[in-house]
Amino acid sequence: MSGKGGPDHPIVVDPESSRFFRLPPDVRLVEPASGSQGATYPAGFLAAGVVGGLKDSGRPDMGVLAVASECRGTTASAAVFTTNAFAAAPVRVNQTECDLDHLLAVAMNSGNANACTGEQGLGVARVMQESCAVGLGIAKASVAVGSTGIIGVPLDEAMLAAGIRKAAQAVVPDGGPAFEHSVMTTDRFPKMCALDVPTVDGLVHLGVCAKGAGMISPAMATMLCVVTTDATLQPAGAKNLLKAAVDTSFNRITVDGEMSTNDSVFFIASGASGVSLSSEGLDQLGAALDAMLLRIALMMVADGEGATKIVRLQVAGAPDEPTAVHVARAIAGSPLVKTAVCGEDPNWGRVISAAGAAMRGKRLPHASLLLGGVKVVENAAALPVSESDNVKMHAAMKEPELDIHLDLGTGEASAEIFFSDMGHEYVTINAEYHT
Amino acid sequence: MSGKGGPDHPIVVDPESSRFFRLPPDVRLVEPASGSQGATYPAGFLAAGVVGGLKDSGRPDMGVLAVASECRGTTASAAVFTTNAFAAAPVRVNQTECDLDHLLAVAMNSGNANACTGEQGLGVARVMQESCAVGLGIAKASVAVGSTGIIGVPLDEAMLAAGIRKAAQAVVPDGGPAFEHSVMTTDRFPKMCALDVPTVDGLVHLGVCAKGAGMISPAMATMLCVVTTDATLQPAGAKNLLKAAVDTSFNRITVDGEMSTNDSVFFIASGASGVSLSSEGLDQLGAALDAMLLRIALMMVADGEGATKIVRLQVAGAPDEPTAVHVARAIAGSPLVKTAVCGEDPNWGRVISAAGAAMRGKRLPHASLLLGGVKVVENAAALPVSESDNVKMHAAMKEPELDIHLDLGTGEASAEIFFSDMGHEYVTINAEYHT
Repeated sequence: MSGKGGPDHPIVVDPESSRFFRLPPDVRLVEPASGSQGATYPAGFLAAGVVGGLKDSGRPDMGVLAVASECRGTTASAAVFTTNAFAAAPVRVNQTECDLDHLLAVAMNSGNANACTGEQGLGVARVMQESCAVGLGIAKASVAVGSTGIIGVPLDEAMLAAGIRKAAQAVVPDGGPAFEHSVMTTDRFPKMCALDVPTVDGLVHLGVCAKGAGMISPAMATMLCVVTTDATLQPAGAKNLLKAAVDTSFNRITVDGEMSTNDSVFFIASGASGVSLSSEGLDQLGAALDAMLLRIALMMVADGEGATKIVRLQVAGAPDEPTAVHVARAIAGSPLVKTAVCGEDPNWGRVISAAGAAMRGKRLPHASLLLGGVKVVENAAALPVSESDNVKMHAAMKEPELDIHLDLGTGEASAEIFFSDMGHEYVTINAEYHT
Repeated sequence: MSGKGGPDHPIVVDPESSRFFRLPPDVRLVEPASGSQGATYPAGFLAAGVVGGLKDSGRPDMGVLAVASECRGTTASAAVFTTNAFAAAPVRVNQTECDLDHLLAVAMNSGNANACTGEQGLGVARVMQESCAVGLGIAKASVAVGSTGIIGVPLDEAMLAAGIRKAAQAVVPDGGPAFEHSVMTTDRFPKMCALDVPTVDGLVHLGVCAKGAGMISPAMATMLCVVTTDATLQPAGAKNLLKAAVDTSFNRITVDGEMSTNDSVFFIASGASGVSLSSEGLDQLGAALDAMLLRIALMMVADGEGATKIVRLQVAGAPDEPTAVHVARAIAGSPLVKTAVCGEDPNWGRVISAAGAAMRGKRLPHASLLLGGVKVVENAAALPVSESDNVKMHAAMKEPELDIHLDLGTGEASAEIFFSDMGHEYVTINAEYHT
């Protein structure tokens, strides 16, 4: 296979310095993403990553993250899965054969998505679950599974069983980075993060290990993510926090508009801190979680196929939020908009045309548009742009982070979405890859 | 501006030889598209194209097509417009200030779309309408207008008025090709066609002049089309025929998923043949019209930005037709699918993933997929592909015309859509164009 342009391809937008990322006051980013412990930073978690043999490259391809045995009585968890109609076998097994409220471990593999694999695939996902459970000495239903890689190719069940069991037996308190590397596919950099979160109830911690960089290879699954905290939560609380955070992060980014067959986000609270959160404390943890997952989401956009820029698109003045999201997604998914951004050309007509197509049958006589902070459309008509504003707009187009603000002028609802541009490298990666 | 890759870029799919195009029995294609009279082939029509001065290139940019004066009492007409919420000024004027049932002329310009131009633009569109009416000596309301070109730039009203009037006074019976050239923008070849249509009621004729090749430049409008016949029709009959034909042609193609601010299709019957059509005759004319507009639509796909292939995608087994169309559009609009087709790689996982995303929240356990005639998925699981089938599939991927057939396995409805692939030339055209 032709790869991702090589590890030397510059990451144009550095998530560390992104102006789109803001931490709540008092919350502390523990260390740079690249060196972070990620999901094993909060107390009460162990992890490992091993070479199981699925990847021809010989790189790590199987991993396990587990709750420490002394915390098994105090955990709570939640999960969010792809709604793709061809959801992969591991997603199906999680949804039907797992106690998602009380997970004690997550087992994952890269190199094969176990998607479109029928009954055989479901059997393999169950074996994966069982191998992890046996390795850790816990119930099968307390293990969730996740796979990423090629679609439609049967997984070697024996190889998977052996590797996952090995990983389960190798878990260590600082195993986050090893786990992270075992789930990466074409990711150009690890996507980990950890936060110290002071709350009114006491100090708790958040950590995350994730993979995802667009749908890259013939059908590589996009996104797997494990979020951890040492706070003491109830399953309902964990669910609310996770859903809210996913809605404003992973559900608000697009590289190429694709929702994969394998997307899964897991959230496990170990209770190791002994800090039970009040309503106010939950809100504080939630705000930190929102920020952390947006950070990871921005990393995924920055690692998008051939991405050279991140665009923050705000659609305001919509009659309701679903409409705002719909219009934002249409603009973010438009190849014409994405190529214009890549070419650093302020072709705002493409944004207007895409928005108008998404709002078909309506009239938007009060719409306005700002590109890089310069108003170019008011009351649905082009505005004359002064020479200095024109210079400002062209300069903004050359920055690694660009703001586009569209006001539909028909209501009060709004939505924000982040997307990457599309250039020759995208085509090279996607058209020149051969199965 | 950087252009369209130059006129020498090969047109890979020749509409003349497309296996996706079939004429009804007895209907005769008059002459090759490139040399056709197009919309002035049927009796009772005159046309002209002139250099009005809007295009820096000095090429023709204003045109008029008119019903011959002796047919003014026997015409009927219909029109279909974009539903883009930012529909351009000419579209608005047509919808509110035009007798669309009894059009006697269409005036068009290229080089400027008169879109996002506010009140000033509406005024210009009215002047355009009036200049044509004065030039022909007919009522203003019997003239429809159409514009294509850049969005958000005011049109020179005096220049437009003079050019349109000149064109109106220059109309001749064989003016179809001149009219055609005056509406072309980045089209690499003219899109004209003419048919002899024998009906149970007698011989009638169809002709068409169109422009459209994807949303190319900063915001070039996509598609303008004038269809003519010398049959005697009623406005309601014309409307029914046109709507049905547009639904199975222009509404079933996608280059980059964009619906422009200016898309307009006009259909005028002169009655010059003296043939009034019975119900059966109307069906025969309708079948010929469907074929002719599909031919023009395929020409537009073949002329799509950087297109090297045309894909015919059939989505069957859907619960209803809108769902089939929705899924087909999602697949046809997927950059991952389009780049895979460009790369001639049978990455069917991308088709499945895009379809599954479009059917989010559903289950499709009986889905099947054929790629280039080879079944690769059955009951939502990958099938082993024999060596000979694999060779067949890879060979099919290399052809200029590719068939993809997806059966959702949940119903009886189906839809067919045609789309082009996406490669480096698309990015070159769209990212390297500068306003």
